[in-house]
Amino acid sequence: MSKPLFEKIALVGIGLIGSSLARVICREGLAGHVAIATRSAETLKRAEELKLGDGYTIDAKEAVRGADLVIVSVPVGASGAVAQEIAPALKKGAILTDVGSTKAFVIAQIKPQVPEGVHFIPGHPLAGTEESGPDAGFPELFENRWCIFTPLEGTDPAALEKLSAFWRSCGANIDTMDPEHHDMVLAIVSHLPHIIAYNIVGTADDLEAVTKTEVIKYSASGFRDFTRLAASDPTMWRDVCLHNKAAILEMLTRFSEDLASLQRAIRWGDGDKLFDMFTRTRAVRRSIIEAGQDIDVPDFGREAVAHRRLRAVPSPAAALY
Amino acid sequence: MSKPLFEKIALVGIGLIGSSLARVICREGLAGHVAIATRSAETLKRAEELKLGDGYTIDAKEAVRGADLVIVSVPVGASGAVAQEIAPALKKGAILTDVGSTKAFVIAQIKPQVPEGVHFIPGHPLAGTEESGPDAGFPELFENRWCIFTPLEGTDPAALEKLSAFWRSCGANIDTMDPEHHDMVLAIVSHLPHIIAYNIVGTADDLEAVTKTEVIKYSASGFRDFTRLAASDPTMWRDVCLHNKAAILEMLTRFSEDLASLQRAIRWGDGDKLFDMFTRTRAVRRSIIEAGQDIDVPDFGREAVAHRRLRAVPSPAAALY
Repeated sequence: MSKPLFEKIALVGIGLIGSSLARVICREGLAGHVAIATRSAETLKRAEELKLGDGYTIDAKEAVRGADLVIVSVPVGASGAVAQEIAPALKKGAILTDVGSTKAFVIAQIKPQVPEGVHFIPGHPLAGTEESGPDAGFPELFENRWCIFTPLEGTDPAALEKLSAFWRSCGANIDTMDPEHHDMVLAIVSHLPHIIAYNIVGTADDLEAVTKTEVIKYSASGFRDFTRLAASDPTMWRDVCLHNKAAILEMLTRFSEDLASLQRAIRWGDGDKLFDMFTRTRAVRRSIIEAGQDIDVPDFGREAVAHRRLRAVPSPAAALY
Repeated sequence: MSKPLFEKIALVGIGLIGSSLARVICREGLAGHVAIATRSAETLKRAEELKLGDGYTIDAKEAVRGADLVIVSVPVGASGAVAQEIAPALKKGAILTDVGSTKAFVIAQIKPQVPEGVHFIPGHPLAGTEESGPDAGFPELFENRWCIFTPLEGTDPAALEKLSAFWRSCGANIDTMDPEHHDMVLAIVSHLPHIIAYNIVGTADDLEAVTKTEVIKYSASGFRDFTRLAASDPTMWRDVCLHNKAAILEMLTRFSEDLASLQRAIRWGDGDKLFDMFTRTRAVRRSIIEAGQDIDVPDFGREAVAHRRLRAVPSPAAALY
């Protein structure tokens, strides 16, 4: 077997992202040793039961000691505390990266803690499901998804290339941009959709005239699409809202303006305006499918799954972990 | 073979719903003869190529003549004109039903046209995908979905039972309620979600700071979920907005109030409030899965489909049409 990309990788945080990384690192043989740290003893025990790594500890310092690559996968609000904790134990020449959904805030939290000689490269793989925890991960999570780096000034090109090679081995495509642009892009493609989904599910849950049972029973007529995002991890999304505030408020303002205009068209019966608005959005979905960012099956494929026109097959990777 | 439920069924409109009905009627042997009418010559030709029925005409009167069951599946804005056209040709004792997404308006349009002796029973199967047209239909569309009737006063119980038996044979569950309640329920479970989806896709499409390419590339982080509903048929949704105005405006007002409150929590950094809001919505998805109204697979099953953990199998019904 060829030499792995890294001698030792430390995974700090072993939720959906961390545990998917553990699985793909194992499948692809990307590390000689995988050290897993999480502050919850229960989660750590579960990670060990799932055989996600080679070493397990609730002490993040111990995990990162001697590691060539340290990946912090925690809610963004915890990134500062984690960085402070692990900083003294980081090896000179190590690459330190994260997977946080907001970048300017995370950089402000982590950068001041990073010791001289450690390569801090902020990152964000745009991948996930509505599930969380070490059981939720799977090795294909990053396949054909984008991993965005927001490198700091003076980043070592060799370290950036090595980290890029790692993510490519996980199946991801690489992009780089500045942190502020990242935060603006993510506010529209990810943060606003989650907030809107949480909001509409809340509105439906609060009605007096329509019972909760009716909302559930009849949800296949549209509503259920929003409940997936609204089932995402509350801690993660609280932190995103708190720490990408400016960009999110900007997108919410635009969304509400547009909605007021649409509402006015409904109130005044402006059918032509409604038809035009509902027509131009159709092309967006087609582009997403053509870009390989969604499957070309009606109803996200779930009707095909439900009606057994698709059948589960054993994953070729399943045997590996 | 046993006697079919109806001697002759006329399908007026052969889009997603009409063509799914044609396919399930054929599979289940529910009619001796299926007559198909649509005002577009091109769509009619396609229906004939797909062998969806036994007779094809652009003259709806001809199709409904002698039919025991007439199902009008057209955008709700067209229901009045269709009713006026077919009324003189309806057979005494025939059942006339529709599949429209708004009921008070459709009743106001159709009821005055219905001749003495014809059983008009307004209906609405809560089923669909983002696709439209005769190619988009499939016979399993109504399986375990709800079909809601909003019967008028004095409806013949035998006719209602016969129509119920028909929809049950199509795989649907039956509910009845009054038209005003239907319109309120559908405003929250279907109309608001579609309007919000159209709106957010429009907002994203209009940004200057984030390019369209970026929105497409990074859409898997949440945005893509909304693009499915926003790819739905513009004519159908224009008509829904125009003809369920009061209930939709009520739901939009509540949604916007709630969003303003959520936005305020973000602006003022109220993490506890955000966490509470994001926690209570999680249970809703679980209830929907337990009610059999969505599949219990992360990410609507699409990641499983994309990563070939699910494989297409020939539909047992596919051979039938």
